Amino acid sequence: MDGCKRAGLPAIGLWREPVQETGVDATARMVADAGLRVSSLCRGGFLTAADPHERSNALDDNHRAIEEAAALGAHCLIMVVGGLPLGSLDLTGARARVTDGIAALAPHAEQCGVRLALEPMHPMYCADRGVLSTLGQTLDLAEKFPAEQVGVVVDSFHVWWDPDVLSQIARAAGRICSFQICDWITPLPADALLARGMMGDGHIDLAGLRQAVDAAGYRGDIEVEIFNADVWAADPDEVVATFIRRYVRHVLGD
Amino acid sequence: MDGCKRAGLPAIGLWREPVQETGVDATARMVADAGLRVSSLCRGGFLTAADPHERSNALDDNHRAIEEAAALGAHCLIMVVGGLPLGSLDLTGARARVTDGIAALAPHAEQCGVRLALEPMHPMYCADRGVLSTLGQTLDLAEKFPAEQVGVVVDSFHVWWDPDVLSQIARAAGRICSFQICDWITPLPADALLARGMMGDGHIDLAGLRQAVDAAGYRGDIEVEIFNADVWAADPDEVVATFIRRYVRHVLGD
Repeated sequence: MDGCKRAGLPAIGLWREPVQETGVDATARMVADAGLRVSSLCRGGFLTAADPHERSNALDDNHRAIEEAAALGAHCLIMVVGGLPLGSLDLTGARARVTDGIAALAPHAEQCGVRLALEPMHPMYCADRGVLSTLGQTLDLAEKFPAEQVGVVVDSFHVWWDPDVLSQIARAAGRICSFQICDWITPLPADALLARGMMGDGHIDLAGLRQAVDAAGYRGDIEVEIFNADVWAADPDEVVATFIRRYVRHVLGD
Repeated sequence: MDGCKRAGLPAIGLWREPVQETGVDATARMVADAGLRVSSLCRGGFLTAADPHERSNALDDNHRAIEEAAALGAHCLIMVVGGLPLGSLDLTGARARVTDGIAALAPHAEQCGVRLALEPMHPMYCADRGVLSTLGQTLDLAEKFPAEQVGVVVDSFHVWWDPDVLSQIARAAGRICSFQICDWITPLPADALLARGMMGDGHIDLAGLRQAVDAAGYRGDIEVEIFNADVWAADPDEVVATFIRRYVRHVLGD
């Protein structure tokens, strides 16, 4: 938060684990004192369990996450929907349980003024993290619900490769809860969960995606989200300064 | 070839590099002497270069690959179409050049009795290996040409995650040149190019894909293709024995 404030950034995306360590109310005060907003709370989801007990626990946890997002003033809760249960090959079933889970959570989210932001994840995470694999598939699910209850995340890392990405971003008008950016770098780092690069270091046409999101009417925050061991090890103020420069050049620029 | 023969397998997929080391005619004789067929020749493609000289070289090399496939009696040449040129963010342009390249090669392929087998690749290879990312997108391209000129490969590793995979396999009837199998294992091994697992060790509903390919009328060879350092280091006869058992259980079985 201090780094964001020093750099003049208006908002910060928060993750539940550090928020819970600090406490939700204390975090909300820190954000307000820093003059920041919470762009999103990450993350709810993990709704694919077939076991009734696990499923019930997951729903309870998501209800709490919705309330935490509301207490933090986050307009959306990012939903990483979960992968295949251990030993299961039933991808269709896992996807159906995600739909059921969202149906169970959406009314509570609306009551709390928080949108469930479904995040399609890169297909390389389909088995173990998120069975929503394309923006089109995610919109098929989101559109079963009112737009004030359920929206989508457009994360450059997850969707850039999709031949339909531009038309699906246009279709997502009114549903986009967050536009998240980083780059796809090659060779892919050894840890697939830390494979993201700084904007401009990779292969994604970020300006093209930004224009599409603009054209779809999105006026919310653009979140820089770079899971990368080297970025995490670098001086935070330098990282922020770098991504601001890179944002201007590679995301705003054409 | 000896291992296939010992195990009673009827056919083997060949790669150009070892074929060229041995010589095309000598390889064809070895295959015939072993009582085998060539299920496919891997690989042509790499058609995304924007530079005219590189592009011309790539087309020349593909013409040679088509002739090699014909000399080996392979009914298809597997096409890995290539990733983004160095420094380029123009994915749409790269995909358009693939279409142009296939148009330039398809008549020669038909004259040689070889089908160009376009392989959609997992989206994690989009930047550096193959800009055809889904079976649907690949069929959109293939259908611009007669089925005897251009078909598709259904490789479980590349397509299993796709929400549309079953309907696209049905659509591919008459175009399927090869059904290739291996499993998606987690955690993803450090080298993304060697990330494939033995059937039954991962998350893919291989029996479901096999049934869909069957229902689409495919009666050709099923190719086991496992790029994995541990598999390569193991005793080849044991590997063949294992994949035969796994095939019966996880691919034929329900």
